[in-house]
Amino acid sequence: MGIMRATFMYGAGDVRVETVPDPTLQNPTDAIVRVTRSCICGSDLHPYASMEHSSTGAPMGHEFLGIVEELGSDVSTLRKGDLVIAPFAFQDNTCVFCREGVHTSCVHGGFYGNGGVGGGQAEAVRVPQADGSLVVVPGVEESSDLLPSLLTMSDVYLTGHHAAFTGRVAPGKVVTVIGDGAVGLSAVLAAKQMGAEQIILMGRHQSRTDLGREFGATDVVAERGEEGIAKVMDLTGGEGSHVVLEAVGHMPAYEQAYGIVRPGGTISRVGVPQYEAAPVGFGSLFGKNVTLTGGPAPVRAYIEDAIPLVLDSTIEPGKVFDRTIGLDDVPAGYTAMQDREALKVLVTP
Amino acid sequence: MGIMRATFMYGAGDVRVETVPDPTLQNPTDAIVRVTRSCICGSDLHPYASMEHSSTGAPMGHEFLGIVEELGSDVSTLRKGDLVIAPFAFQDNTCVFCREGVHTSCVHGGFYGNGGVGGGQAEAVRVPQADGSLVVVPGVEESSDLLPSLLTMSDVYLTGHHAAFTGRVAPGKVVTVIGDGAVGLSAVLAAKQMGAEQIILMGRHQSRTDLGREFGATDVVAERGEEGIAKVMDLTGGEGSHVVLEAVGHMPAYEQAYGIVRPGGTISRVGVPQYEAAPVGFGSLFGKNVTLTGGPAPVRAYIEDAIPLVLDSTIEPGKVFDRTIGLDDVPAGYTAMQDREALKVLVTP
Repeated sequence: MGIMRATFMYGAGDVRVETVPDPTLQNPTDAIVRVTRSCICGSDLHPYASMEHSSTGAPMGHEFLGIVEELGSDVSTLRKGDLVIAPFAFQDNTCVFCREGVHTSCVHGGFYGNGGVGGGQAEAVRVPQADGSLVVVPGVEESSDLLPSLLTMSDVYLTGHHAAFTGRVAPGKVVTVIGDGAVGLSAVLAAKQMGAEQIILMGRHQSRTDLGREFGATDVVAERGEEGIAKVMDLTGGEGSHVVLEAVGHMPAYEQAYGIVRPGGTISRVGVPQYEAAPVGFGSLFGKNVTLTGGPAPVRAYIEDAIPLVLDSTIEPGKVFDRTIGLDDVPAGYTAMQDREALKVLVTP
Repeated sequence: MGIMRATFMYGAGDVRVETVPDPTLQNPTDAIVRVTRSCICGSDLHPYASMEHSSTGAPMGHEFLGIVEELGSDVSTLRKGDLVIAPFAFQDNTCVFCREGVHTSCVHGGFYGNGGVGGGQAEAVRVPQADGSLVVVPGVEESSDLLPSLLTMSDVYLTGHHAAFTGRVAPGKVVTVIGDGAVGLSAVLAAKQMGAEQIILMGRHQSRTDLGREFGATDVVAERGEEGIAKVMDLTGGEGSHVVLEAVGHMPAYEQAYGIVRPGGTISRVGVPQYEAAPVGFGSLFGKNVTLTGGPAPVRAYIEDAIPLVLDSTIEPGKVFDRTIGLDDVPAGYTAMQDREALKVLVTP
């Protein structure tokens, strides 16, 4: 058994790349994947800002693609050498909730970095439920220029897509995206794909909102709070937005969302909420018949339809990566994302 | 100008029937309707329990049907003598939000008992925006046995329908209704109409849950809180309910709702929330991709499709009325409903 490098977080601001034993098959449904590309997620920044010290460290990373190296005896749909994308949650893809399209609630599923499963910011990962969890991309070389966009199929683009899908974005709709991080920009691109008529992007980092415009945003609002709400109301003729895609997760973004959503409209959240309670009564959601939806994206439900759009260059969601680093530089990558120097960091182990 | 009797609330537990001037036309879009049937709403019990003393009193009642007596000069679709149902909110039925099916947010709309508009627990009512607000029922006599069921088109049945509609009840779905009041029972009937496979009614008043079974409930759960949640989970094979229709409006009902909704499911609220903040984060809604929807029912959006179901006896939602009183007895009617002696009280002015 060999050794590899993998990323662990020991507390807020404390990310380390360490040497650990290679992952090994533990169940007949497992596969071992050698990671070709992984990345740092906006949601990794939440513990990076607030995690309490841990003496053991938490394995980090949940977005990766790579090459199948080993297969458990029960795995039937994969072959060694396959280039595979790993959706950010693993799942059997057969249980009742998977069949209903909520793969992130799979009864045999889970999340990387928890319960004895390693993280994706590493040289290799043991993938449970490999048949249900790994999606083969045939005919793509390990050196392909498409890898960054294919990597976004693991999480970020399809999380943006999930927001737009559960928000029922459709032709003719006015859509506002709150947040100019990589998920927000992905939500812009997804809303554009679904035919939204007007896409307002709320964000204040011009290099990011410029990419948002390239992805399909028709308007950019840099203001926040009441001022931002007034601006969006103005841009929508005082009526508000049919759909609000909330890609931040903090309370001010939620408050903006119900401030700009129109009667009968929908707020779809994909930013992991950093709050538990929030206004939902007559004065916020109920009175104007607002629907609140969203959650962790069931990437597995969408990925097979989305990959062809990358392969034929209909979409290029990999443009959200503006920095590429090696695995040893992952700690600096966290800092760069936290300081907003990098939008999203690609890792080549 | 004559005088009439009308109901006013002066504070918690203080309802009075008083003599006031007859309503008169104030705008060319108004109509005056002589009330044939009205009723007391579960939502009237909220101020009846908690309203602070008012020296002027609040006009009460928002559900009524009656005969058109006078018409403003701009009203074009009604004739004197028409039997009309008044949806519980008035609206122009032409504005952008009406066209989008959210009539309770009409830009020219409002609610009875507010802003100089009287209430329906009275002998007559001035109806603003009469063309958009009143729905003619042709060929029905003022003495018809259908009047109670037609009166439910004003609010209670179509509020139950709204819950089921926004909750996207459909064939094959497991639906749980929280609350055995008249709205809850209406939600059961509406869910049955939409083809729900299993309809679990959470309620503890047997005469009511018996009517719920008649309306289509397949199971009744009398327990509340954690015990009630466990019972519903048991009845759904541990998976939970696809759709939860919350017809109460208090926090324990909300907590039950997110306890029993399955991953990817929907909570649709039509009980007016008696809270503003509620859990919506990872541990309640977000983590399992639960959708929260509902609000004040845009009755006008549904009523034209629903009236024929009453006229041909497909549904008999008027069974929720278990007591009929005259207008002078309205104060006693409030007491009977608050004490749960009556499910819903019909008023014949």
